[in-house]
Amino acid sequence: MNQTFPSKLLERAVDSFATLPGIGRKTALRLVLHMLKQDEENVNYFASSLTDLRKNVKHCRMCHNICDNDICDICANDMRDHSIICVVQNIQDVMAIENTQQYHGIYHVLGGIISPIDGIGPNDLNINSLIERAQEGHIQEIILALSPTAEGETTSFFISRKLQPFGIKLSTIARGVSVGEELEYTDEITLGRSIVNRIEFKNKEL
Amino acid sequence: MNQTFPSKLLERAVDSFATLPGIGRKTALRLVLHMLKQDEENVNYFASSLTDLRKNVKHCRMCHNICDNDICDICANDMRDHSIICVVQNIQDVMAIENTQQYHGIYHVLGGIISPIDGIGPNDLNINSLIERAQEGHIQEIILALSPTAEGETTSFFISRKLQPFGIKLSTIARGVSVGEELEYTDEITLGRSIVNRIEFKNKEL
Repeated sequence: MNQTFPSKLLERAVDSFATLPGIGRKTALRLVLHMLKQDEENVNYFASSLTDLRKNVKHCRMCHNICDNDICDICANDMRDHSIICVVQNIQDVMAIENTQQYHGIYHVLGGIISPIDGIGPNDLNINSLIERAQEGHIQEIILALSPTAEGETTSFFISRKLQPFGIKLSTIARGVSVGEELEYTDEITLGRSIVNRIEFKNKEL
Repeated sequence: MNQTFPSKLLERAVDSFATLPGIGRKTALRLVLHMLKQDEENVNYFASSLTDLRKNVKHCRMCHNICDNDICDICANDMRDHSIICVVQNIQDVMAIENTQQYHGIYHVLGGIISPIDGIGPNDLNINSLIERAQEGHIQEIILALSPTAEGETTSFFISRKLQPFGIKLSTIARGVSVGEELEYTDEITLGRSIVNRIEFKNKEL
């Protein structure tokens, strides 16, 4: 869409919004016009919430999660099990696992996965710092919680090879049929794997 | 989604983005994390493009279009026909009509349409200033280019009643089958109207 904007200021704001992923120029215009209707105070608050975040946000020097201090709340929490590390791709995955309230160990955020197509190799990820943590000696288990995609599996394999010398128990998240899912509509690879990797029937787990 | 954010700064930025129309908290998180990957300079530019717009944008005192000066580029342009006013709902409509490059008159932006459900009455719109413009005497035609919805038709009707005393030619945009549209898939009201309001066949217009 080659639009003529009635105002340079408007055009600049729309251009800014349109740089965001998934936001086209038509949506950007709608969002900017929404902002225009807000009080100036609200717009300034919106803007400062972004600049403050970019300026002041930190990454935990243990697990690379986003945080407000040197060490994130999870790593700083003595109630968590510091002998288990869950390796994830990004902070959204940390948030997703935290939301389940089923995991009480600590994390390691890779910051991506190995993807030759996107030019992302092992050295672009926080893999060396994971190996350093493994070397420290008190880690008992490392859970590789990456997406079950070709890139995720490759990254898991690469990390597992690097961690082999330390004799730490390695595990991965269970793959299978989603809870509440109909078998009829489950894709065949997932269903096939869930039969091959079947687990012992225990009443209490149901 | 009740998420635990690893950082208050992150949460504040996500909350800000989630106030935008059509942006949920999951999308907001994705947008904010995208911003986090940008240079600080880019984020500051993004933020300032919004605050600058909100602070400095003006509305044309003739047509109420958004602009950077007291009078918008269209109203200030002597090459345009100042005897025809096209009445539209909002500035997106001005941009849409300008994009067609088929209109060379000037505009009047109502800033909405009459909508009792949303509590918007005639006094909330720029209708009085339109009547003042009509009173000035040199206007020959006013085009009511509002959406062909119940609210749009109501607003057109209200304005046409107000403008009646001035003896100005009133027109509205043609409604009919879209160019390139298959008759088979045209809704019956549009198709019916396009037959009732049929126009003379002229070779050169095809």
